[in-house]
Amino acid sequence: MSELLDLAGILVFALSGALMGVRKRLDVVGMAVLASMTALGGGIMRDLILNVPPAAFQSLGYVLVPIAATVIVFFWHPQVARIMPLLLVLDAAGLGLFCAVGTEKALLYDLSPLHAALLGVTTAVGGGVLRDMLAGEIPTLLYDRQLYAVPAMLGSGAMAALFELDLHGWPAVLAAAVLAFGLRILAMKYGWRAPLASGVKPSE
Amino acid sequence: MSELLDLAGILVFALSGALMGVRKRLDVVGMAVLASMTALGGGIMRDLILNVPPAAFQSLGYVLVPIAATVIVFFWHPQVARIMPLLLVLDAAGLGLFCAVGTEKALLYDLSPLHAALLGVTTAVGGGVLRDMLAGEIPTLLYDRQLYAVPAMLGSGAMAALFELDLHGWPAVLAAAVLAFGLRILAMKYGWRAPLASGVKPSE
Amino acid sequence: MSELLDLAGILVFALSGALMGVRKRLDVVGMAVLASMTALGGGIMRDLILNVPPAAFQSLGYVLVPIAATVIVFFWHPQVARIMPLLLVLDAAGLGLFCAVGTEKALLYDLSPLHAALLGVTTAVGGGVLRDMLAGEIPTLLYDRQLYAVPAMLGSGAMAALFELDLHGWPAVLAAAVLAFGLRILAMKYGWRAPLASGVKPSE
Repeated sequence: MSELLDLAGILVFALSGALMGVRKRLDVVGMAVLASMTALGGGIMRDLILNVPPAAFQSLGYVLVPIAATVIVFFWHPQVARIMPLLLVLDAAGLGLFCAVGTEKALLYDLSPLHAALLGVTTAVGGGVLRDMLAGEIPTLLYDRQLYAVPAMLGSGAMAALFELDLHGWPAVLAAAVLAFGLRILAMKYGWRAPLASGVKPSE
Repeated sequence: MSELLDLAGILVFALSGALMGVRKRLDVVGMAVLASMTALGGGIMRDLILNVPPAAFQSLGYVLVPIAATVIVFFWHPQVARIMPLLLVLDAAGLGLFCAVGTEKALLYDLSPLHAALLGVTTAVGGGVLRDMLAGEIPTLLYDRQLYAVPAMLGSGAMAALFELDLHGWPAVLAAAVLAFGLRILAMKYGWRAPLASGVKPSE
Repeated sequence: MSELLDLAGILVFALSGALMGVRKRLDVVGMAVLASMTALGGGIMRDLILNVPPAAFQSLGYVLVPIAATVIVFFWHPQVARIMPLLLVLDAAGLGLFCAVGTEKALLYDLSPLHAALLGVTTAVGGGVLRDMLAGEIPTLLYDRQLYAVPAMLGSGAMAALFELDLHGWPAVLAAAVLAFGLRILAMKYGWRAPLASGVKPSE
């Protein structure tokens, strides 16, 4: 069950990477690289920092799902782009899941709750940051004022708190993931925005 | 012998990095950073993922060769640029060698054949991707439609297949490297191109 | 004492990251990411290469100081920008300290003096390179011809030489840091410049 959820999250992130590849007119190799790095980059960063071999290089599904996403977007990218509103909801689900799973893994490797939560956020947003850097753009996360990292922080914080209360395993992961997912959806629905430094005007 | 080949591959990659530095009008520090990262970046990524200390920080030659490449390009870059056709052939040789060596090292660390081949490709192309990102450009690998990663994939796949058949050591590495090298040369000669997603027009 | 110095170095690097965030009109999340990566990125690279868990994910101060820098710059960035000359002096101190500390840590993990010095330089300049890449710019280090990496190299080299002479601990670190700091200050004062490759014209 939790593996299926994981692969679903990877699929959505990989689709977003492959679509970025089409938008930047990359070839099929570029699409596959962006799809893989978007989907797996955050987890690879997490595992490098935990000093364990990255899960992406041990699991078959982690390799095949980004390839499948590349094939889908290669042939049907107009249709995939058309269901973007649905993809944004699924992306929020991936965000929630990855921050919760990443935090739990870090806690199991004995990081403090604070550091584990930070690594959970890294897991959730790292792939997207890498995608944008590879595509030659400033990472969306840094400037677009949407609340994306903040829901992940709160979800990761909740996961760390539950773990400290000895609430482990998938029910805790699910609760933290749902919290981050819900906050992300609310942030999109109500247009909540991250503030700019005092006196800085929005750039549009 | 295999060490000499390795250093030759590093030299060619480092020359390409230093030349990029001249083209972007970087200073000598920037040239040395690009030369080193182009030559060593792929291997460092491989070793970080294998969770072993990067070979680049243990070998004397790996440090000195990029410095030598920087010095050569610093004083004689017009001459080096003039032998570019030769450099492209040597680069193809480096590509072949690095994908085969990287795949074999990953197999020796017990990765599955599929994951080892992917890590072999990462070894071969990672430095060039890092070079382009440092120079503020979208990695050539992602968009230029030349077959560069694909020959590396086939060479890495061949290395993994030979290893599974218990064919180890330098003859297997050489065979896989020659395959990738030959495919890369043929791809350049006949202008084979990676496809764009359906309906996407080439950007030129 | 050495921990206080360390945190002071992190504060200055984090301020420079957060200021870059304001200059690029990033939101508060982007400011915090740039502040953290500028301050901690070099040390994280060093620890990944040494194959040990990054210190940034074990220490409380390493997390809180970049957050404090973000808050300060968020509310008072005009004032912080006004003390830029002072910040450049502090940055030179951070550079000196980080190259010496990074080199010593690498030596304690049995790297050769040459490789330890290179890793010390990486520690000192890696965060700034990451800051510029995240902000969508070519790293200043690569092109601006200021002597920044070179004082770090000489400081790291001095640290490695002292260590070889069995001079360990904070007096050696301090001596190496002061050397790099002094050279950096002299380079700024007298406008010493890194050379361009032969025949390349400055771009301004």
